[in-house]
Amino acid sequence: MSDARFSKIHIGDLQVPMREVRLTNGTSVRLYDTSGPSRTDRSAWGSPVTQLGAARRGVITKEMEFVAVREGMTPEFVRQEVAAGRAVIPANVNHPESEPMAIGRNFLVKINANIGNSAVTSSVEEEVEKMTWATRWGADTVMDLSTGPNIHDTREQIIRNSPVPVGTVPIYQALEKVGGRPEALSWEVYRDTLIEQCEQGVDYVTVHAGVRLAYVPLTARRRTGIVSRGGSIMAAWCLAHHRESFLYEHFDEMCALLARYDVTFSLGDGLRPGSISDANDEAQFAELRTLGELTKVAHAYDVQVMIEGPGHVPMHKIKENVDLQRELCDDVPFYTLGPLVTDIAPGYDHITSGIGAAMIAWYGTAMLCYVTPKEHLGLPNRDDVKTGVITYKIAAHAADLAKGHPQAQAWDDALSDARFEFRWEDQFDLSLDPDTARAFHDETLPAAPAKTAHFCSMCGPKFCSMKLSHEVRAGMAEKAAEFTRKGGSIYL
Amino acid sequence: MSDARFSKIHIGDLQVPMREVRLTNGTSVRLYDTSGPSRTDRSAWGSPVTQLGAARRGVITKEMEFVAVREGMTPEFVRQEVAAGRAVIPANVNHPESEPMAIGRNFLVKINANIGNSAVTSSVEEEVEKMTWATRWGADTVMDLSTGPNIHDTREQIIRNSPVPVGTVPIYQALEKVGGRPEALSWEVYRDTLIEQCEQGVDYVTVHAGVRLAYVPLTARRRTGIVSRGGSIMAAWCLAHHRESFLYEHFDEMCALLARYDVTFSLGDGLRPGSISDANDEAQFAELRTLGELTKVAHAYDVQVMIEGPGHVPMHKIKENVDLQRELCDDVPFYTLGPLVTDIAPGYDHITSGIGAAMIAWYGTAMLCYVTPKEHLGLPNRDDVKTGVITYKIAAHAADLAKGHPQAQAWDDALSDARFEFRWEDQFDLSLDPDTARAFHDETLPAAPAKTAHFCSMCGPKFCSMKLSHEVRAGMAEKAAEFTRKGGSIYL
Repeated sequence: MSDARFSKIHIGDLQVPMREVRLTNGTSVRLYDTSGPSRTDRSAWGSPVTQLGAARRGVITKEMEFVAVREGMTPEFVRQEVAAGRAVIPANVNHPESEPMAIGRNFLVKINANIGNSAVTSSVEEEVEKMTWATRWGADTVMDLSTGPNIHDTREQIIRNSPVPVGTVPIYQALEKVGGRPEALSWEVYRDTLIEQCEQGVDYVTVHAGVRLAYVPLTARRRTGIVSRGGSIMAAWCLAHHRESFLYEHFDEMCALLARYDVTFSLGDGLRPGSISDANDEAQFAELRTLGELTKVAHAYDVQVMIEGPGHVPMHKIKENVDLQRELCDDVPFYTLGPLVTDIAPGYDHITSGIGAAMIAWYGTAMLCYVTPKEHLGLPNRDDVKTGVITYKIAAHAADLAKGHPQAQAWDDALSDARFEFRWEDQFDLSLDPDTARAFHDETLPAAPAKTAHFCSMCGPKFCSMKLSHEVRAGMAEKAAEFTRKGGSIYL
Repeated sequence: MSDARFSKIHIGDLQVPMREVRLTNGTSVRLYDTSGPSRTDRSAWGSPVTQLGAARRGVITKEMEFVAVREGMTPEFVRQEVAAGRAVIPANVNHPESEPMAIGRNFLVKINANIGNSAVTSSVEEEVEKMTWATRWGADTVMDLSTGPNIHDTREQIIRNSPVPVGTVPIYQALEKVGGRPEALSWEVYRDTLIEQCEQGVDYVTVHAGVRLAYVPLTARRRTGIVSRGGSIMAAWCLAHHRESFLYEHFDEMCALLARYDVTFSLGDGLRPGSISDANDEAQFAELRTLGELTKVAHAYDVQVMIEGPGHVPMHKIKENVDLQRELCDDVPFYTLGPLVTDIAPGYDHITSGIGAAMIAWYGTAMLCYVTPKEHLGLPNRDDVKTGVITYKIAAHAADLAKGHPQAQAWDDALSDARFEFRWEDQFDLSLDPDTARAFHDETLPAAPAKTAHFCSMCGPKFCSMKLSHEVRAGMAEKAAEFTRKGGSIYL
């Protein structure tokens, strides 16, 4: 994006970033931009209690103003959505480098990229590089899911460099602290880990507080049991101690803690289905009901909440998930992983899940957690991260179009105009991935004149429908002129 | 697929091919197989007039029996679907090498792979290789869309080697015969081309007989005009001569011709939208109404018919296409290109269209025409063909699942069982693309012991939810035993 045809611009007092694409016909298009580096230092803005607390008191924060500019909405609309709990602005007071963004069904659909190392592979530098790479292609948030050594340092490097909100799953670090043995976990270890992460600047945390002791037996007859890491850790703890989940029992204390930093809850779906066969079962929906209860508790503390969702769901069962989440959880933002619409394509789960993601976002999901081609097989590398992000930008944008977001249609129109007018360079520049579009074109027609040619190698010059279509239009114009000359009688 | 864990088996007198996957737990799974080479020689079966004619007279042909074995249905059910026009079995009497297959909403969703060269690139050998490659990954039919030199020879080589039905768009060759000038086309040139292709063994032909003179002006205010090659050629002809389409005017003669060979009509959507902006417009639906009329004409000649569909359609406008096609066209099979659900991702249009394809197939489309990553940018190569086929197998299978096809769920269950039981080799073998699944896994954990390990590099050993889930199950079994020992009092 260092090309002269692209530039990063910053709008207004708050320096809201946008990507300006200058087209060869003299016009330009402004696109939402997540790529950083941030010019924002929110520490100078003065901090409200939480965004939800401020919104409820009628206060429009700088964060809301920033979001309003990015999304082309009024600050008052943003405030209302946050006040109602329908949108969240994850913005830890200790992550002043982040550029505020909103997650909510009435805003552009957002996407999250998971990064982070495991015990088996990857380094701190690689993970920071993946974060930068993910936001460069459009990731709206990143989650650091590191589980190996150096969890604290990896997270520190990611947060300090991230222009987007950073999410984590604190139980992963807590488990490392107790040597990887779930039964050795305790509220005290977990709480200290949570404080450490809040202090560091984590913007939202996945908490599997809905995995209650009584729900564990509901997973016994499942085809694939419990497939959430956090969910399986909590289930193992509950069973080992034969006690109610300490996350559930200490939920009020967690709310008080998160409120001090304005860290947002992402209430985890620890019992999400891990196969088509297990979709929409009693275990999954029992947990969802509990997440609905916990939403009300968090809201009483002015803590922002979103709800995580599945997983593996066949197409005909997707809508029920959204409808039930809205009903049970007071319409707070839904944040789903895919869902994958079939289990038979390991190696292509960005696609099996991209299908489900587009549909569930159309139905009302506010943020989509990406899935890379390596899902179920290994840790994603840099190329996988890019493929996952682009696939999910497609899903999110397709949903924006289907929901009638005004900015969404304009982008498609600009690209289609460039296509119909054979402005190849503009077509590339307006693409989600200009590099790939240009490379694919140049593979068969690399010469410079092909960039203005009225065809490509797909059809060749004689069979280009768009070229013929222009000739048809010219023909119609001629006929129209003839019609006028002849005094206006019908010529067809 | 040369591995000992896979074998091609042939069932019954008709030698119906299936792929048998032998799993490490001693069971096996049989999958639909398109890969050829065919053991079929239909010329020995004796030929009915057309499959539709036979079905209407109550005759169950060998082709219907073959389909019944492949799909796990009764021959009588197949006959009824064909007799009603809801399914077609494209099977030119001059293509005896093809293995019969059915296209219809009550059968497995099928996919087509477009191959064929353009004036700019590719050779005959490459195109035959693409056909073999496409069917090896699961293409149910192939269309030879060659437009360059050697059209006749390319097609000859493809048909003689193809175990699946071959479709074409005869107007491409007709246009080559008149030097690439649409206005020089005539019914006579077109008819001779059609006879040549019917003689050669083409199983179905795309005919853009619904692009009528009166509809051409309806495209004038479109964002992207006419994007079907056949559609733009016919529009140019109509306008140049200021006459009704010769395809429309000579439709009865075409029916009589196709009936002699049992070639199936694929009535082309020459006015399909080429951008999100143009979806579901008057031009598109005016043509669809005409295709409905022509369906009745073809059926009067016992000629089998399917209807082609768009194109570029946002998610919320997809269902209307299927509903209208069913209503206007007597529920004959719908055969759609995608649709792409956004225009902004050239280079990834297998994905933008795979989303729409899965949805439209769930709604009732019988066959999906694949789109490769090169769409809009260039002619697909071998890798692009594979990516397109796998993406569309995902879309088709996701729709089979959502429609409740009994064989579909069994495949997902077998793979999910292998996943939950850490049978890695079985997981790979049951994948749509075993090579890629294995390669991705081995990228980070190549050693042989990792093939039986209870984790992968994505989470590492301590954080594998499935491993923990097994421990939770063991814990529950222990608790259940304790419950029994203690006399059955509630332990939760």
